[in-house]
Amino acid sequence: MDRLTIGRGDIETADDRIRPYVRRTPVLELGPGAFDLACRITLKLELMQHTGSFKPRGAFNKILSSDVPESGVIAASGGNFGLAVAFAAHTLGHRAEIFVPSNSPRVKADRIRAMGAVVTVVDGWYDEALEASHGRAAQTGALVMHAYDQPEVVAGQGTLGLELADQDPDADTVLVAIGGGGLIAGVAGWYEGRTRVIGVEPETSRSMTAALAAGEPVDVEYGGYAADSLGTRRAGEIAFTIVSKHVERVVLVPGDAIRDAQRRLWHEVRVFAEPGGAAALAALLAEAYEPEPGEHVVALVCGANGDLGVLSED
Amino acid sequence: MDRLTIGRGDIETADDRIRPYVRRTPVLELGPGAFDLACRITLKLELMQHTGSFKPRGAFNKILSSDVPESGVIAASGGNFGLAVAFAAHTLGHRAEIFVPSNSPRVKADRIRAMGAVVTVVDGWYDEALEASHGRAAQTGALVMHAYDQPEVVAGQGTLGLELADQDPDADTVLVAIGGGGLIAGVAGWYEGRTRVIGVEPETSRSMTAALAAGEPVDVEYGGYAADSLGTRRAGEIAFTIVSKHVERVVLVPGDAIRDAQRRLWHEVRVFAEPGGAAALAALLAEAYEPEPGEHVVALVCGANGDLGVLSED
Repeated sequence: MDRLTIGRGDIETADDRIRPYVRRTPVLELGPGAFDLACRITLKLELMQHTGSFKPRGAFNKILSSDVPESGVIAASGGNFGLAVAFAAHTLGHRAEIFVPSNSPRVKADRIRAMGAVVTVVDGWYDEALEASHGRAAQTGALVMHAYDQPEVVAGQGTLGLELADQDPDADTVLVAIGGGGLIAGVAGWYEGRTRVIGVEPETSRSMTAALAAGEPVDVEYGGYAADSLGTRRAGEIAFTIVSKHVERVVLVPGDAIRDAQRRLWHEVRVFAEPGGAAALAALLAEAYEPEPGEHVVALVCGANGDLGVLSED
Repeated sequence: MDRLTIGRGDIETADDRIRPYVRRTPVLELGPGAFDLACRITLKLELMQHTGSFKPRGAFNKILSSDVPESGVIAASGGNFGLAVAFAAHTLGHRAEIFVPSNSPRVKADRIRAMGAVVTVVDGWYDEALEASHGRAAQTGALVMHAYDQPEVVAGQGTLGLELADQDPDADTVLVAIGGGGLIAGVAGWYEGRTRVIGVEPETSRSMTAALAAGEPVDVEYGGYAADSLGTRRAGEIAFTIVSKHVERVVLVPGDAIRDAQRRLWHEVRVFAEPGGAAALAALLAEAYEPEPGEHVVALVCGANGDLGVLSED
């Protein structure tokens, strides 16, 4: 694969390839009246995937479809992709080197190290870490793993859409958080408009909203709550292509709404999500996306590598 | 119902009755090598039930099959049954009065109050609270809800067995924690020996082990880790009858193994269970129950109303 989009065939192939290594994560239908809303809410609990996020799907697919050199694999990551690459490399017997931005939660860097990867902390955000990792890759010849802008990675994340469509075939709408856009590209690439897909970005990290407005990926400033997993300077090219075609719209949620969604998920379902993992549900709770009464909405809860302290702030 | 056992018909009736009010909680199959064990492990994530434990199943079934007086319902509870009774009463429009032992985690009493029930804290453990609640019930005429030794309650908990058998029909073995025995009685009452059911008690709270040794429920001393939800002076009569008939054996786990299971559940699956909720898995991890290679074992993860602090003690 070396192109700007992926199709259902790529996702089916990815699913066959990675199935022995990833969990089929559960869905939970909440029943009438959940969160005091009139819609029907299902949670896709992808935070129970290995390493606590959806990222191993793409990481396994990229590694398993590549020739991996002796020097192994290399990636830059705010944490979750780094964890996933470290886990997949360890599982498959390859070396891994991960460049982590200094603004990531420390728990993520510690967990990456614990999985045997070499970690380099780079001052700044994701993009600084990415640049540093490219310099290093040029020296070592390691396989470069991109967190979202490689077709094999997007196809791997798309297996989440394939799986969800099988588990919950009558969903009307699927809400997906956007960082670089790999997850929503994979999911929307699976549904191809058959089911409504809505993107969710934090108000303060809106690379896809900006790309859609400009007609192409453009640089944005980013930061604020949830930026540790969703902050990106520029939406992925692949993601932009697929989102433009198959995503109905992208809505914005404030940081406070994301924090509130984390707390309500805990209090009402005993599920702990990190900020990026709670963003999709936040769009529903904060009415950034307003479903029809009875509409069957799935919120992807896609990561849990955050600080539990948020639960004791009430 | 006024007898010492229940059957599959009682559980099917209960399931029809309570289905609109309870969640069908998800199962998660962990895949090969989980927790470095050679068996196949599935988690039944009942901790995502309303109020964070399995107890609403029995509470709804008892209330829905009774004539509830104006004075409402009354119960004694270490916390989870109290939460469930408060939730069910609130949902169905009845008053609720809950007697909570002073040794329960404060978070549980606070949550019971938050659901609109009147809470009385009684110095001591569960049995002291139970006695005090009986005195009060004699005054008010409220419907007495017993945490485990009423057939409607046991039949309600049995819906978890019915549900699990549907979700995971080829399980070889189901591990179930025992407090008073309502949950294991319901589950074993559903399976009736068709699937192996193993009971799990903390070493320091072993009312069922003592009952099986004595040939009838007898008083025991109890305390230690997990006693807040699993500590009981005497196993239930109904539970003893069913466990004697349909449970292969009851194994004991030390408190440290339960604490370790809580941590490993979090680190590997991002699921937080309270001590009683992690006890069944602890039997597997601590080899109190040793499955055959390839054996398909389900661990019920049945409660999440504990102290998150245990996760930061590493």
